[in-house]
Amino acid sequence: MKKWQVLLHEIIYEADTKAGKTFDIALLILIVISVILVALESVLWIDHQFHNLLNIAEWCITGLFTIEYILRILSINKPIRYIFSFYGIIDFLSTIPKYISLFFMGTNSLIALRALRLLRVFRILKLTRYIGESNSLLRALRASRPKILVFMFGVVIICVIFGTIMYMVEGKSDSGFTSIPRSIDWCIVTLTTVGYGDIAPTSPLGQFVAAFIMIMGYGIIAVPTGIVTAEFSYQNKKIDTNTKACLNCSNADHKDTAQFCHECGEPI
Amino acid sequence: MKKWQVLLHEIIYEADTKAGKTFDIALLILIVISVILVALESVLWIDHQFHNLLNIAEWCITGLFTIEYILRILSINKPIRYIFSFYGIIDFLSTIPKYISLFFMGTNSLIALRALRLLRVFRILKLTRYIGESNSLLRALRASRPKILVFMFGVVIICVIFGTIMYMVEGKSDSGFTSIPRSIDWCIVTLTTVGYGDIAPTSPLGQFVAAFIMIMGYGIIAVPTGIVTAEFSYQNKKIDTNTKACLNCSNADHKDTAQFCHECGEPI
Amino acid sequence: MKKWQVLLHEIIYEADTKAGKTFDIALLILIVISVILVALESVLWIDHQFHNLLNIAEWCITGLFTIEYILRILSINKPIRYIFSFYGIIDFLSTIPKYISLFFMGTNSLIALRALRLLRVFRILKLTRYIGESNSLLRALRASRPKILVFMFGVVIICVIFGTIMYMVEGKSDSGFTSIPRSIDWCIVTLTTVGYGDIAPTSPLGQFVAAFIMIMGYGIIAVPTGIVTAEFSYQNKKIDTNTKACLNCSNADHKDTAQFCHECGEPI
Amino acid sequence: MKKWQVLLHEIIYEADTKAGKTFDIALLILIVISVILVALESVLWIDHQFHNLLNIAEWCITGLFTIEYILRILSINKPIRYIFSFYGIIDFLSTIPKYISLFFMGTNSLIALRALRLLRVFRILKLTRYIGESNSLLRALRASRPKILVFMFGVVIICVIFGTIMYMVEGKSDSGFTSIPRSIDWCIVTLTTVGYGDIAPTSPLGQFVAAFIMIMGYGIIAVPTGIVTAEFSYQNKKIDTNTKACLNCSNADHKDTAQFCHECGEPI
Repeated sequence: MKKWQVLLHEIIYEADTKAGKTFDIALLILIVISVILVALESVLWIDHQFHNLLNIAEWCITGLFTIEYILRILSINKPIRYIFSFYGIIDFLSTIPKYISLFFMGTNSLIALRALRLLRVFRILKLTRYIGESNSLLRALRASRPKILVFMFGVVIICVIFGTIMYMVEGKSDSGFTSIPRSIDWCIVTLTTVGYGDIAPTSPLGQFVAAFIMIMGYGIIAVPTGIVTAEFSYQNKKIDTNTKACLNCSNADHKDTAQFCHECGEPI
Repeated sequence: MKKWQVLLHEIIYEADTKAGKTFDIALLILIVISVILVALESVLWIDHQFHNLLNIAEWCITGLFTIEYILRILSINKPIRYIFSFYGIIDFLSTIPKYISLFFMGTNSLIALRALRLLRVFRILKLTRYIGESNSLLRALRASRPKILVFMFGVVIICVIFGTIMYMVEGKSDSGFTSIPRSIDWCIVTLTTVGYGDIAPTSPLGQFVAAFIMIMGYGIIAVPTGIVTAEFSYQNKKIDTNTKACLNCSNADHKDTAQFCHECGEPI
Repeated sequence: MKKWQVLLHEIIYEADTKAGKTFDIALLILIVISVILVALESVLWIDHQFHNLLNIAEWCITGLFTIEYILRILSINKPIRYIFSFYGIIDFLSTIPKYISLFFMGTNSLIALRALRLLRVFRILKLTRYIGESNSLLRALRASRPKILVFMFGVVIICVIFGTIMYMVEGKSDSGFTSIPRSIDWCIVTLTTVGYGDIAPTSPLGQFVAAFIMIMGYGIIAVPTGIVTAEFSYQNKKIDTNTKACLNCSNADHKDTAQFCHECGEPI
Repeated sequence: MKKWQVLLHEIIYEADTKAGKTFDIALLILIVISVILVALESVLWIDHQFHNLLNIAEWCITGLFTIEYILRILSINKPIRYIFSFYGIIDFLSTIPKYISLFFMGTNSLIALRALRLLRVFRILKLTRYIGESNSLLRALRASRPKILVFMFGVVIICVIFGTIMYMVEGKSDSGFTSIPRSIDWCIVTLTTVGYGDIAPTSPLGQFVAAFIMIMGYGIIAVPTGIVTAEFSYQNKKIDTNTKACLNCSNADHKDTAQFCHECGEPI
């Protein structure tokens, strides 16, 4: 690698130097603007009134993203690895459509291309890198992930069972529980306390089951909360532990009341 | 018991051997497919279009469940005990309808039989055995069950009282609070923050009471959460502290990595 | 007081003897039945079809409650104190209407009397005595009450401010924010995640504010939870503390690591 | 500053003396009344029926606020600083409109002036000063603010991504997902479990994604709760441990009731 490549790599892929930080912030702003542009373009009356303005802004964004894409390839040691990574594919697919639209002018293909441009929204995930580093949020979430997945799976099972029960109870009346998937859908909406209210049970038994589901949903919302909270408290406690360090073996993770190092047995 | 029965018992009822695990996973997939089949069959247009396909799949599932049922009876020491257990009855009742439908061709009896087949959904509970073992989720839930039941009972009392109050306040106007059960139903929907919005108070006093119920519901959601969280923290703490005890001073509260007692400095 | 009065007092007001417990359970069932009766009577079609049955049941309940009321007065030392207590007034007012209805046969007065009978619902509060005693639920709630009240007050202030902002933003359009109280009401419904959906903002700015309120409501639900959970953990910890007791002064509330009593200085 | 100015400053800006407390409570009541007045005035039929009464009450409030404003300026050392502070500007802008309305009688300008009077609602924030001082609520919230902001930012990112996905899935059908901002709005409403139910997905894939969003929303509500709870527990623990230290062995982790060190037995 040549010297300018190393410098470029430092700016684009790292955030230690001042230039690297400036590049990151500029990219951040660019991603947010591009997401807002995609969102605005989907609103019919805005697209009609400001079509040219949006088009020009779109070309600017596309140009800048193109430059970024080329620079990323030039400055990396193994370009192939970046190109076929998740972000590499997203970057490519969300940049290319504007260029293709120059050659194919048909309306139908344009719609398909617009769908591709929507992928740009996933670039927003790059933002998480900058904030996630410094806090224990993601660490606690990752630690409690298996339990949360089991909980979510349990919620799905509860919804399948109660959805089927509601279908058996309400299926014959005209209250909207026309099929089991529909009933399961209603059960998810109710249990998670979202509550759309488009369909509702009409028979007394159905209303009783519905009331039970609601109170249960109100009660078991405590479970994921309990899992994550216990994890957070645990993380906090780990950070809390004092700064006593053993002079002999420099082990630092001691209890508050420790008078001897638990690794080597020397007094602290 | 003969040798093949012991072997079969090991495969079907246990999960320690490789064959046992394979059987469990195959059964799992079969249950999930059968639940999806029952759900799809209840959707009118799918039933119309793919009636034959669903029928064939249904027969395959029924055949496999029949084999499983027979093998379960053959491989167990006391078959009577399995047959009259909860899962035994569910297994029987959800397998038999397809066979009966061969003899009785009337449409009315078919509907009653379909209702029986819906019981298959309860087989899904078997799944919980495979995930529930390895985590503290169910243990924490079981430990906090009495408190959660008291809480749910308290919620019901609050809903009965406020439902009656709302009926007294709103009953005479045309706002939908036509009876006390209806008002209690509304109160449950509102307190649990589900919020359908099909009926709403119209008088100023009714709206004030409704606002109070909402804020109260928003506040007391904290109670089950607090119960379960405190239980989780307690469980975590119990798992955290090991049973290592110092031979010298019998101090027992050591870290997992401790090799020396932190009270007297002696090796553990 | 005579001997039968002391005995009766023991049965009615206390729950230590077997007869006392039986009386309590019988009263419990009677209260639940009477509440269900009041609720059923308010449903029009049930009242029409089973009017006589309900009337007879009502008379039975009234008779039993009358006997209970008289016995309560006879068996207590200072009857005046019971009569003018909260439960004494509720008991009297919810028993008397049926008798009055014998003398006044006009329909109008009957409706006023029915309203009185609805007070019977408050008798349900007597139930709480039997379950609330044995657990730390109410103690934790009482300990965190001042903080929860401050939180609820904070929620009301937030709703007043954001309700007014929504009225300023949406008041001129036809989206239903016709007055400030109406907007505050909507704000409470949205912030507490109840979400009726009867009115919704139409202007982009209004929708942005609404989105902000929702995410805020989703976030600050954590506050009461945090308060109650911390209180529960604290209660649990207090129960947890070890059973070491000082031989000198019998103080029992020691730290796990304590080697000397912190009250008298003697070694444990 | 003259003596009466010092005295006035003590009454208005401080709350230590009896007069100061009385002033604070009087101001509190005045602010609450003025907020209720502004709210009532916005209800059409109340404004029509009680226009004169409301007008007189408005003048009384305005008069009292004017006196308060003048006294505040007179009793402070650097009036300029108060005048251009947040509360100074709010106080001025919410008092002046009533006086202006005397000179300009046109209806149009009156509406603009009414908007100014609505600012009075922000005075309600002054109330927080009196309750926020004595509890750890705000301290815990302030400590967990950065984490909560990161969480809210994460929720917004999730809503942008899933809103776009829902637009891609449902955009072509007539189910109301007409634009990306509209879809993001729906996603926020669903994820925060508010659930208006004005638009709903119609395609099976859309319904599946919706169900996933709901269960996810039901699950990640645990995160802010976990953050705040861990913070509360931490605050509680900090308050719990006093600063008593043993003079002999300098052990500092004593109980509140400790009179002797539990490590060495020396009196504290």
